[in-house]
Amino acid sequence: NMLAEWAFRSGPIFVKALLFFSFTLGQITICSILMLFFSFLLFILLWSAMALTQVSSNKCAGGFQKVFEHDSTELKCKMKFAIYLPPKAETDKCPVLYWLSGLTCTEQNFITKAGSQLAAAEHGIIVVAPDTSPRGCNIEGEDESWDFGTGAGFYVNATQDPWKTNYRMYSYVTEELPKLINANFSTDPDRMSISGHSMGGHGALICALKNPGKYKAVSAFAPICNPVQCPWGQKAFTGYLGADRSAWEAYDATVLAASYSGPQLDILIDQGRDDQFLSASQLLPDNLIAVCSEKKIPVVFRLQPGYDHSYFFIYSFINDHIKHHAKYLNA
Amino acid sequence: NMLAEWAFRSGPIFVKALLFFSFTLGQITICSILMLFFSFLLFILLWSAMALTQVSSNKCAGGFQKVFEHDSTELKCKMKFAIYLPPKAETDKCPVLYWLSGLTCTEQNFITKAGSQLAAAEHGIIVVAPDTSPRGCNIEGEDESWDFGTGAGFYVNATQDPWKTNYRMYSYVTEELPKLINANFSTDPDRMSISGHSMGGHGALICALKNPGKYKAVSAFAPICNPVQCPWGQKAFTGYLGADRSAWEAYDATVLAASYSGPQLDILIDQGRDDQFLSASQLLPDNLIAVCSEKKIPVVFRLQPGYDHSYFFIYSFINDHIKHHAKYLNA
Repeated sequence: NMLAEWAFRSGPIFVKALLFFSFTLGQITICSILMLFFSFLLFILLWSAMALTQVSSNKCAGGFQKVFEHDSTELKCKMKFAIYLPPKAETDKCPVLYWLSGLTCTEQNFITKAGSQLAAAEHGIIVVAPDTSPRGCNIEGEDESWDFGTGAGFYVNATQDPWKTNYRMYSYVTEELPKLINANFSTDPDRMSISGHSMGGHGALICALKNPGKYKAVSAFAPICNPVQCPWGQKAFTGYLGADRSAWEAYDATVLAASYSGPQLDILIDQGRDDQFLSASQLLPDNLIAVCSEKKIPVVFRLQPGYDHSYFFIYSFINDHIKHHAKYLNA
Repeated sequence: NMLAEWAFRSGPIFVKALLFFSFTLGQITICSILMLFFSFLLFILLWSAMALTQVSSNKCAGGFQKVFEHDSTELKCKMKFAIYLPPKAETDKCPVLYWLSGLTCTEQNFITKAGSQLAAAEHGIIVVAPDTSPRGCNIEGEDESWDFGTGAGFYVNATQDPWKTNYRMYSYVTEELPKLINANFSTDPDRMSISGHSMGGHGALICALKNPGKYKAVSAFAPICNPVQCPWGQKAFTGYLGADRSAWEAYDATVLAASYSGPQLDILIDQGRDDQFLSASQLLPDNLIAVCSEKKIPVVFRLQPGYDHSYFFIYSFINDHIKHHAKYLNA
């Protein structure tokens, strides 16, 4: 991957130098052959960096639910992601909804439990669900807790050792993954949106708030709304970003909303009222809503009586969320 | 459980004998106390036989997805089952759809992956999904293969050692479980139906065909239609029912359909055309369809191009199946 990166950056300059060399010396034939050879090498290197290996493919709701593996340049490890391709993607370019999962999840939880495919098929939306952290990096302590390290990337770019080399989930989900998806599937790169659950709800909110206009819509299930104020967030941010709390604010939805200036963002949030993590003050939606009210950012916040933090809750309202995204993606 | 069964059968006679004894001897006071004591004992024993322990409860699609554990008298072990209670069950008696799962499944697969709850809520149907075999009976060889023993009860009453004591899934799903459900939940005992997947599709078909009129509707996903003719069925039936093939026919949907006489049974079957077990001749739907055509049993058989044997396939068409059952359950 280092080699691919080098080739990507230095390749065009190298080709130009070769061109210059060939014309000044007039040795056109030999240089043309050299140019062809190096262009071919460059192509192979770029291709291998973008290469996807299909892990599984299942017909679902008229389209295909697939899982791919690739070498991530941001995370410097193999990563899996799931992608649902609606029937419409066979003939048209479709918008893409990115789904970010919660603590301990892989790319599997959402695609097997949420029941999103029928609505995605109906609205012609591609749904991409990445894994929640780098895996198998052999970092000391990566598997010690369920809420830090493996399965708990928190969608930040770590600045602290030993995490900073691999734990760059923010750049992965906002930059590398969309590039990869747009290069390999029938997408409309101008129409993307983002959603997620719990830690992934936090991820969806910060990705949208930090990149005004990039995502046409955002929604979340039981998001961690104010991580700098809750135990989960404080533990993760201390580990990934260090003790200086000012560095944490760049990844806190409530702080980011307070300074948001960009195109209007309609946020849909569903929250179970009987969610154990709501009462444990891990989610703190009131803090986000207060800031959004002040800043006149429209939030539809639905406190759903009786619902908990599980995928049974997500399944119950996923159709509403897909519809919310379709409204903006297919506008 | 043996004690409970004894108490259930002999209890009323015992009470009558006590009554007779008390009146003939005129020792009314002492005998009344004895009667009270034994009645209380009987009540406790019956109650413990029918007692349910709630394992989990999650609000879902407006109702509740629950899992319970109980001591099964048929299977002589602890059994779990899942039950979805639609919002309507809070105020009304609802019909019950029994779902039988396939090889290796527990009560969890269907409730987390099939996405049936929204449609069940809409049509006011209770959905009960039992486990697929007795568990933890410490029978030699029970965990040796994935297609026999644990997770592979095949919905028969075993006649062979060492299986015959516990492996009585046919009586469990057709008798004990409905009694338990009707005694503990807001059901209409006259309105029940049955469905299932693969081994559970076989189970659903034989339960309906062996009990004319008991189930108002039947449907199946990729059912094993003619187990006496396929490797899975032959292995299971040899183990549970012995080498005499004539004993197998009592549990074969194709054989049973040939001699069915009862109320009209509208069968809905969905089958993935790219199902690996279809091409491996494990499912043999053509054999069942041929017999049903001959016998004028109406079968809607939908061969779904591109679909495989997975829950992605079930999820894609579960709404149609719930609707099929609702048509007969809510008629």
